[in-house]
Amino acid sequence: MRQSNLFFTTKREVPAGEVSKNAILLERGGYVQKTLAGAYSYLPLGLLVIRKIGNIVREEMNKLPRTSEVQMTILQPRELWEETGRWDDAGMKEIMYRVGDDNSAGLGASHEENVTDLFRHLFSSYKELPMAAYQINTKFRKEARAKSGLLRGREFLMKDLYSFHASEEDLDTYYEYAAAAYMQVYERMGLKAIRTEASGGVFSKQHSDEFQIICEVGEDDIYLNATGDLAWNKEVIDGEDDPKLLEFSGGEIRKASAVEAGNIFRLGTKYTAAMNAQVSGENGERIPVYMGCYGIGVSRLMGILVEIFGSLGENNRGAKIVWPESVAPVQCHILDLLNDGTAEQLYTHLSNLGVDVLLDDRSDKTAGEKFADADLIGAPHRIVVSKRSLEAGGLEYSLWQKEDAKILSSEDVFALFKKTSPQ
Amino acid sequence: MRQSNLFFTTKREVPAGEVSKNAILLERGGYVQKTLAGAYSYLPLGLLVIRKIGNIVREEMNKLPRTSEVQMTILQPRELWEETGRWDDAGMKEIMYRVGDDNSAGLGASHEENVTDLFRHLFSSYKELPMAAYQINTKFRKEARAKSGLLRGREFLMKDLYSFHASEEDLDTYYEYAAAAYMQVYERMGLKAIRTEASGGVFSKQHSDEFQIICEVGEDDIYLNATGDLAWNKEVIDGEDDPKLLEFSGGEIRKASAVEAGNIFRLGTKYTAAMNAQVSGENGERIPVYMGCYGIGVSRLMGILVEIFGSLGENNRGAKIVWPESVAPVQCHILDLLNDGTAEQLYTHLSNLGVDVLLDDRSDKTAGEKFADADLIGAPHRIVVSKRSLEAGGLEYSLWQKEDAKILSSEDVFALFKKTSPQ
Repeated sequence: MRQSNLFFTTKREVPAGEVSKNAILLERGGYVQKTLAGAYSYLPLGLLVIRKIGNIVREEMNKLPRTSEVQMTILQPRELWEETGRWDDAGMKEIMYRVGDDNSAGLGASHEENVTDLFRHLFSSYKELPMAAYQINTKFRKEARAKSGLLRGREFLMKDLYSFHASEEDLDTYYEYAAAAYMQVYERMGLKAIRTEASGGVFSKQHSDEFQIICEVGEDDIYLNATGDLAWNKEVIDGEDDPKLLEFSGGEIRKASAVEAGNIFRLGTKYTAAMNAQVSGENGERIPVYMGCYGIGVSRLMGILVEIFGSLGENNRGAKIVWPESVAPVQCHILDLLNDGTAEQLYTHLSNLGVDVLLDDRSDKTAGEKFADADLIGAPHRIVVSKRSLEAGGLEYSLWQKEDAKILSSEDVFALFKKTSPQ
Repeated sequence: MRQSNLFFTTKREVPAGEVSKNAILLERGGYVQKTLAGAYSYLPLGLLVIRKIGNIVREEMNKLPRTSEVQMTILQPRELWEETGRWDDAGMKEIMYRVGDDNSAGLGASHEENVTDLFRHLFSSYKELPMAAYQINTKFRKEARAKSGLLRGREFLMKDLYSFHASEEDLDTYYEYAAAAYMQVYERMGLKAIRTEASGGVFSKQHSDEFQIICEVGEDDIYLNATGDLAWNKEVIDGEDDPKLLEFSGGEIRKASAVEAGNIFRLGTKYTAAMNAQVSGENGERIPVYMGCYGIGVSRLMGILVEIFGSLGENNRGAKIVWPESVAPVQCHILDLLNDGTAEQLYTHLSNLGVDVLLDDRSDKTAGEKFADADLIGAPHRIVVSKRSLEAGGLEYSLWQKEDAKILSSEDVFALFKKTSPQ
């Protein structure tokens, strides 16, 4: 991609009204543009990142047994939500947008009713179970305060997975597979997630699990042991003397702020019972169907990545994002400071090798402006083509915005990408 | 994919309340499930088809000069629409859903305001033009009657492209590139589209262009000449004696019902002027920005394909869809009537060759049920593994649901896919 051709620009100033780090950096980097509080439009590079995050999630979900990708409607008919009593539920009323002249539909804040309706249309026998379906789709929630950028939005992208089982044991088995898939998702984008015991809510006596990432702007407080492999949300802990903490921690307990990057729930039969979504059992009798639900905020992950891997700098200088390679919009950013055709050749050659390259081909920008933009954009590999680099015998190459750029020949650069390229 | 693992089933009966061919066949084939009138959930195979259609559109849009993919918000702030006067426009009020406790936002029925807002945030000089951005995103329209399945929905998937230019001539140039890209889109999915002159609406004295596909359920009437390379929407024709018809047609004129599969408009400066989205010109003066918009209904195309390539059969028998290979959910459907491992081996081998295969591995279905389902699903290549086929020396192979199945050896089948496979 040529930078001059893209429908985007970076910004020098902190956008008016933005207070969260991820929103500031993503808008300054030309990744998103705020359209209204809590709702961001994705510009070309932002769409590439969100799609890469979505594809990592998709690949891990597709490995789960008997799990299909679907896409449910955003419009939610009132009748479905009346079946479960959630249409008039006070908490749901607070967050669900209603639409239509007669308010006869809602906008999906969650899809338990919708997916259970699909399930009962499609399946009728225990022999067909387990079955699971997920989607990556836009969700809507009336957030009173939407000031955390992509961490908490009114319109956001979410992966929601729902599984259906003929027994509680089968649900428990799938639940653990899903938990393992979640850990894979975070690991693949360079995030250290902590599986954290949380309340089961109204659905289940069993606990639910959250996947928490330690982060100072996180809205959750968690307690974790020294190795970080056992953790509890504050909501399930009865003060710092809770015997649970003492029993499992070996004495060393830390408290930390964390942001929830996913959660998984055993819903049991709440929705399937209310919506009459039973199946026939071995002897033809109607048997209950046990359900689990599993959510990951895809656009929230983009915000979390910037909270973790971004830096605001000081006095508007030094702002940068350092994307992990798996989700970076491009692998390589070429800064052409010479405009003599050398960078163009390199761009063509690397593109032909299958490397995703962004070429800063703008002729009306200073070197300083190009470096500042490249810091904000944050591609893992950077190559500068300048008079100085050519005089020093080649191209200036740096990785992850580290200071120690090296001078490499074109051949060295090609060899590098032959090694790092996934092909 | 194994059919028994997928979150879908076919249906034997015409779904209650459906009258349109595409809705009946898509729901019977397990492609979609109606959630409310005019809003369909996509089941796994339906999502594959809609994604293939979307990718064809995406590839052709990406070939257009200086054109980027973005994703704008579905929520539309009232203030933006008040700038253009469309918030209180009677026609727009009729189709745009409003949301929020104070109705302070709408759901995107169209994104001119949103994209013009992005444009003015990002660009300020004629030197940066032309610039164009498109998205493939969910749109919402309050349709009073939504009875045409995927042809006219309340919630639907659309590709909308917007271009910005420093002169009318530049807009005209891009407009023709876009028209050519549209023709490529339809051709790649086996549809014969007719570029049809239509009204420019309130935006422009120049005509707009529609891409019409002849189809008996189409809502438009068009006049076309013998070769079909010149056509007019009835709305721009002054009766059958209109001199325009006589002049260009060479005397032979047909009238036909057609369904609109896309349209392109010159918007001129209507939105950019109302929203103060001018740029600086050569001498620093503010100059007007000319805009074009270009729409393709992605989910509507899925409906059109079924109207054209599907058949309802008679008395609930013989219903089928025959997908063009470029948009079929899978290339090949293997019907296992034997369950002795032969079909499994074939499935593994073809999958390893990179062929998209659906294996009907269900052991509780009769041969008749499997054939009827395969007709509805409509994969281009079908392979039946049965006692009869093995006795005849191999596998029963047929293309496009033609009657004359051939007996082929496994090697013949592999060779066939080596030839047809895109790799």
